[in-house]
Amino acid sequence: MDERIQTICARRSVRDYTGAAVSEQDIRALLEAGMAAPSARNLQPWRFIAVTGRQELDRLAAIHPYAQMLKSAGACIAVCGDREVNDAFWVQDCSAATENILVAAALLKLGACWLGVHPRAEREKSLKEQLGVPDRFGLLCLVAVGVPAETPEPRTQYDESKVRRERWT
Amino acid sequence: MDERIQTICARRSVRDYTGAAVSEQDIRALLEAGMAAPSARNLQPWRFIAVTGRQELDRLAAIHPYAQMLKSAGACIAVCGDREVNDAFWVQDCSAATENILVAAALLKLGACWLGVHPRAEREKSLKEQLGVPDRFGLLCLVAVGVPAETPEPRTQYDESKVRRERWT
Repeated sequence: MDERIQTICARRSVRDYTGAAVSEQDIRALLEAGMAAPSARNLQPWRFIAVTGRQELDRLAAIHPYAQMLKSAGACIAVCGDREVNDAFWVQDCSAATENILVAAALLKLGACWLGVHPRAEREKSLKEQLGVPDRFGLLCLVAVGVPAETPEPRTQYDESKVRRERWT
Repeated sequence: MDERIQTICARRSVRDYTGAAVSEQDIRALLEAGMAAPSARNLQPWRFIAVTGRQELDRLAAIHPYAQMLKSAGACIAVCGDREVNDAFWVQDCSAATENILVAAALLKLGACWLGVHPRAEREKSLKEQLGVPDRFGLLCLVAVGVPAETPEPRTQYDESKVRRERWT
């Protein structure tokens, strides 16, 4: 791994948290990172719901099938996209914002994990209901955030077989 | 902007390059960053085509309607995804990889820009033909990379009106 990109490689999926709160300053920094992402024609179709209430986090954990870690998380950021603003590119724009939030979490010494929602229709519908997200918005994912109980080493998963030069063949 | 996330905010869309080459070491680091992204069930559906030939870059510039900057770029990375591996999530996975490449470019003092392709069907078809990408793979985007002729300041586009707390309403 090139040392210059260590920051990026330090982003690992962390699913085990201490249960401690995430500070307002850190939540603000995560959202700033999300909104520093590029978006198609800079339309910024994203919306973010920052959830920190214990009951609210536990409720999300009960709805999403792979979100047990929310029970020990300090926060959850739901990343939504305005389909009326850009139906063709909102998923890409919101994915870029999500990745920025995850890299930022590593910079803030927090642990985080991307929990897929869209396009799993049932999961998206239930979570939108729980969070009160209007119809026209898609709910791309939940990002669990917490004080990490584990800190995995930085790593790439570089695989030469996934790289071509100049042309596929 | 929180100083701790400066690295992320330093990623700006740069469309003006000196025409100088991008080193093999830097291309390798960009690809390592891309492959450090998370993916659904860690299936890593991505493939990357690194283009550095002058003729090949000019040809891509002639096909993509907003890719004139490729004429002064040193490299272009085409980000593809294996739809047979994960048709539901390849766009999100490849978008996360793309954002990592863009943040890495800023760390390497390179300029870069995300050029949208998928789901613009005609654009995707022409570029897949040019690059020889097999049918089953989607071509998410091109990333133009070059030695920057301009270096915009770090910034977030944080907008309080895009944030909700606990619930949408």
